[in-house]
Amino acid sequence: MQRLAKKWRRAGEGIGLVPTMGYLHAGHLRLVREARKRVGKRGKVVVSIYVNPTQFAPTEDLSKYPRDLKRDLKMLRECGVDVVFTPEDSEMYPDRRPVPAGFSTYVVEEKLSRTMEGASRPTHFRGVTTIVAKLFNIVQPDVAVFGQKDFQQAAIIRRMVRDLDFPVRIIVAPTVREKDGLAMSSRNKYLEGDLRRQATVLRRAIEMARATVKKSKRIPLARLKADVGAMIESEPDARLDYVEFFDPESLVAVAEITSGVQMALAVFVGKTRLIDNERL
Amino acid sequence: MQRLAKKWRRAGEGIGLVPTMGYLHAGHLRLVREARKRVGKRGKVVVSIYVNPTQFAPTEDLSKYPRDLKRDLKMLRECGVDVVFTPEDSEMYPDRRPVPAGFSTYVVEEKLSRTMEGASRPTHFRGVTTIVAKLFNIVQPDVAVFGQKDFQQAAIIRRMVRDLDFPVRIIVAPTVREKDGLAMSSRNKYLEGDLRRQATVLRRAIEMARATVKKSKRIPLARLKADVGAMIESEPDARLDYVEFFDPESLVAVAEITSGVQMALAVFVGKTRLIDNERL
Repeated sequence: MQRLAKKWRRAGEGIGLVPTMGYLHAGHLRLVREARKRVGKRGKVVVSIYVNPTQFAPTEDLSKYPRDLKRDLKMLRECGVDVVFTPEDSEMYPDRRPVPAGFSTYVVEEKLSRTMEGASRPTHFRGVTTIVAKLFNIVQPDVAVFGQKDFQQAAIIRRMVRDLDFPVRIIVAPTVREKDGLAMSSRNKYLEGDLRRQATVLRRAIEMARATVKKSKRIPLARLKADVGAMIESEPDARLDYVEFFDPESLVAVAEITSGVQMALAVFVGKTRLIDNERL
Repeated sequence: MQRLAKKWRRAGEGIGLVPTMGYLHAGHLRLVREARKRVGKRGKVVVSIYVNPTQFAPTEDLSKYPRDLKRDLKMLRECGVDVVFTPEDSEMYPDRRPVPAGFSTYVVEEKLSRTMEGASRPTHFRGVTTIVAKLFNIVQPDVAVFGQKDFQQAAIIRRMVRDLDFPVRIIVAPTVREKDGLAMSSRNKYLEGDLRRQATVLRRAIEMARATVKKSKRIPLARLKADVGAMIESEPDARLDYVEFFDPESLVAVAEITSGVQMALAVFVGKTRLIDNERL
């Protein structure tokens, strides 16, 4: 992949990268279309499919994470992708044994990654920044496209690119939703029976918050959080992990809800953890 | 610099990088010659001069670190360097204020950087790996040349390049020494009067260890360390910081001294901290 990328760069061809963990859905294909738009017809679009172990905690769903490479490849072929990069663990983390052979270098972002997903999943973002740095060095893209659904991730990757001077432009493409408003996610596959219906509560909570902000200018933060919590808990199998209101640039929590604030929440629906976010 | 590097790469020209903190000496020029050899006459050689604040602890000599850009530029012009890259702090660490503007992404190596220099200077290597990653992303070199005098640094950078897949080949060029054996270093400037003579004790300690290893095959580690310590302390203004014997690949301390082992030591001579190393 690295050799191919060097060849492309030498030929002056733009490279667009869409990093994914596979089990693709319409949200991913939106990212692919965005990448194609940015690099043009003659440019190269690379989609990486890699379920990155370092961004899962030991208690999380790494081994169960849904995979279907055959289906993914078919979808990407129909999308006109140039290369699908599907590395193995042994290539991405060679010799993860103790010294001398062990893998021991990480990219860490220390401010934006402390809250929300970072608070709930303490080693998650260090795994994300490390693998994205690796993918940037391997694929050498001019443009990389990430999804708005993982809002905090996109903010952290932008920060990483700025701080470490990666020669890559980061594009964030809008969340794609099911007809009933559920944000598309590979993890939606886990939602069986009534859980699928209950999962729309994330979107409903966002709509409720948006309506509240529209009606009255200044809303006590604690009251809105309580209202969101109550709405989530009204579903029998839903449990709120967090809901936060923050500045979309700095990710700093706001003291007061006003228009333009970003809202993000994480909710367990059964055993499945879902996230969503919107600007109010 | 990044734009220029992209243009060079597009033109198929090889790029060699020599990262320095300036106040150049013959050791640096050796690295420049090595870079030129690797990229050829048509290739581009970039020397960066930047006294990187994140690799100095608050107690260290950042503000006093010797600088003489005019002299450096003259030396490099005579060496046939293509570009000297001399960024400002405000460019390398923009807005080092708190969130939202703050710099917050670091590259950390967590195994090789725990011992020796890393033990004596706990945040040093994190500053080194971060700035070298930034320089790699800015200059986009095919080859980067480091000095053997900073043996542990070179090992950590090799590890970073392997772990994060930087498309850069790392070359380590031999230590250049003064006639009396003192390893060349910008910090030698601090050695006034008799301190300059006393500073040769690092080299003498290495020679003593080498002679001891030659004479007898298995030497008790504790005895050799004690002998080195005694030799250092025999100089009135010298104080041993550490002496270690280790595997040159893994940097793991050996339990027993045998031929092929790497020896490294750090010694305060007056207030100046000097390092040296050799393979025995």
